[in-house]
Amino acid sequence: MEYQISENMKRVKGSAIREVFKIISKPDIISFAGGIPSPDTFPVEEIKLIIQKSLTEMPALCLQYGITEGYAPLIEKVNERLKKQGTLKDGNTTIITAGGQQGIDLAAKSILNPGDTVIVEEPSFIGALNSFRAYGANLVGVPVLDDGLDLDRIEAILKEDKTVKIIYTIPTFQNPSGITMTAEKRKKLLAICKQYNVIIFEDNPYSELRFTGEPVPTIKALDEDNIVMYFGSFSKILSPGLRVGFTHGMPEIVGKMIVAKQVSDVHTAVLNQVIACEWMTNYDIDAHIEKASALYGRKCALMLSEMDKHFPKSVKYTRPEGGIFIWCTLPEGFDATGVVKAAIEKKVAFVPGPTFMTDIEKKSNCFRLNFSTMSDEKIIEGIKILAEVLEAQGA
Amino acid sequence: MEYQISENMKRVKGSAIREVFKIISKPDIISFAGGIPSPDTFPVEEIKLIIQKSLTEMPALCLQYGITEGYAPLIEKVNERLKKQGTLKDGNTTIITAGGQQGIDLAAKSILNPGDTVIVEEPSFIGALNSFRAYGANLVGVPVLDDGLDLDRIEAILKEDKTVKIIYTIPTFQNPSGITMTAEKRKKLLAICKQYNVIIFEDNPYSELRFTGEPVPTIKALDEDNIVMYFGSFSKILSPGLRVGFTHGMPEIVGKMIVAKQVSDVHTAVLNQVIACEWMTNYDIDAHIEKASALYGRKCALMLSEMDKHFPKSVKYTRPEGGIFIWCTLPEGFDATGVVKAAIEKKVAFVPGPTFMTDIEKKSNCFRLNFSTMSDEKIIEGIKILAEVLEAQGA
Repeated sequence: MEYQISENMKRVKGSAIREVFKIISKPDIISFAGGIPSPDTFPVEEIKLIIQKSLTEMPALCLQYGITEGYAPLIEKVNERLKKQGTLKDGNTTIITAGGQQGIDLAAKSILNPGDTVIVEEPSFIGALNSFRAYGANLVGVPVLDDGLDLDRIEAILKEDKTVKIIYTIPTFQNPSGITMTAEKRKKLLAICKQYNVIIFEDNPYSELRFTGEPVPTIKALDEDNIVMYFGSFSKILSPGLRVGFTHGMPEIVGKMIVAKQVSDVHTAVLNQVIACEWMTNYDIDAHIEKASALYGRKCALMLSEMDKHFPKSVKYTRPEGGIFIWCTLPEGFDATGVVKAAIEKKVAFVPGPTFMTDIEKKSNCFRLNFSTMSDEKIIEGIKILAEVLEAQGA
Repeated sequence: MEYQISENMKRVKGSAIREVFKIISKPDIISFAGGIPSPDTFPVEEIKLIIQKSLTEMPALCLQYGITEGYAPLIEKVNERLKKQGTLKDGNTTIITAGGQQGIDLAAKSILNPGDTVIVEEPSFIGALNSFRAYGANLVGVPVLDDGLDLDRIEAILKEDKTVKIIYTIPTFQNPSGITMTAEKRKKLLAICKQYNVIIFEDNPYSELRFTGEPVPTIKALDEDNIVMYFGSFSKILSPGLRVGFTHGMPEIVGKMIVAKQVSDVHTAVLNQVIACEWMTNYDIDAHIEKASALYGRKCALMLSEMDKHFPKSVKYTRPEGGIFIWCTLPEGFDATGVVKAAIEKKVAFVPGPTFMTDIEKKSNCFRLNFSTMSDEKIIEGIKILAEVLEAQGA
């Protein structure tokens, strides 16, 4: 028997991060590779109490089939919070998804035909990039500057390429760069997208994890023309293992996402939606998020100060105001993949640049460091080792 | 702003069952419309105990990101059970999915190109049909006879149509017909698919709910040539709201499903996988399933005996040996949708035939009755009312 794989799926390779993960599962590795929250932030006792109460008071609701759109009280709570943040838009709809990623995937499925172009930040999040690839999209990368996407480059592309359907951005504490797009750029991006009839996918899993600086409005908050599909998540503020996220956007597209979700996982697990809903209803989630952000702020400051002390001066890196990532750039011509290999020999792991690029075969002089999960001791030790590796490699 | 919907998703409409559900949410309706298990079968206390124990002993595992393939101890437990049932095949792989439906969707995404043909049972399960449509497949319906798929018809199609990639079947206690394919037919179907290089999708959510007759081996159990992708689910034996299922099949295809799942929901919620795993490990799930099956057997027998007593003799119906559905056929020329409308006026709901057909616009003289969720009193009352409606309609 010969098995034929679909043309679209042939184009998608598994994430290289997964390969790194196989190496870093060994206990003596210091890993700056993950993109995961600290388990110290999980409100375990609260979740236990919520589950006992919910399974006692409404077991059939928690365990029976639910509706595809999502558990209505959770949608209400999410909308309340979006409203407080300025992100809720009249006439737009919210759907609960199995994590933020599923929202991106369902929206891409609802919009994209093979051959359509998606403009993505370069570097960007491989999960979203692969989702677009799996619907046959061509990806065009646009550099992320210190203040966000290079808008001149975007305008130049849109003038030439009439197949662009979507611009995908993580505007706040971007994965992997940690960079935040300025409010001014957000407004300009909206104006450009309005002119060229292009939808913005705003992927925003990190913005609540701000530990310094002033909040910037979401692009959706500035959207007066129904241009933005907004993707949110409970993964970084509550728990990623529960797989609960949401999409807020135009009903024409959310309506198709509901149909697409109905034939995928039917609905997000009800018990998990109830947990998120009860947590938002009965606990001080702002205090919880503040505590988590403070933890990440402390770890980020520690990592940066160790890097300042030990890294060769030729290595440049971002100084994020939130999120969980720092992005490092080696001098031109350096191959970050070689550095990663040398560092793994010394038991320090992180993710090389090509993983985040539209062309994953191309060499990159960049790499991503995560600061959310390692202990202070391991951050200090790991950065010292990494500095030695960088020096030994001639950086 | 104008929104363009992808060509593939334009072809998919929401399930008409959902529309029926909106009507039947009123409390005074007697509903034979659902396809859902009885909440009386949910092991609520066991699930509460499992969650308390798991969140106490391994909170970070339950709440942190997991791997896309699934929680390894659950995969092991599922494989053990598949082995006991004869369904496990050497060299095949198991992936945990968010319900059985997601397995079908990911496998379809991994295989289908627009224009490929999928042969489906007629009638069949709309969720799977819409999943195939969403990847651009053409559906060709083949009648379900009293002993399963019409194989002569399948051979005739395969001789003519070289674009057939998949045959989709629910061979045991089929949704919606309740019919089970004989072992002999299963073997013959395998031989035909081997000859024509076509993959079988065996969707098997109901087979454990047998209340009479002798078990029939799964098609996968008879598969010596790696032809069958097997889709299983915890929805009908544990809880559908938890969204846990699995796929067992050829690694070439499961490997691509893993990539597709990684860019969809990343992984099935870990806590939910732990619940399924611990339930299989620490409880007598065979006794649990036997009790659920006995309940459904009693309800099915009651509904059939009431139908025997009250239905006009012109109405034919299946007598299933398991599962949760009975399929009714009115005399030629009758329009079941009209009967459903008349019955809803009398506060009895069920699903008309077109919902289960490849051409949902075509009239059908068939309808589906579900017997798993209504009380005995409501079954007796509802069937009596339905019989009156059928008589009034001239059946």
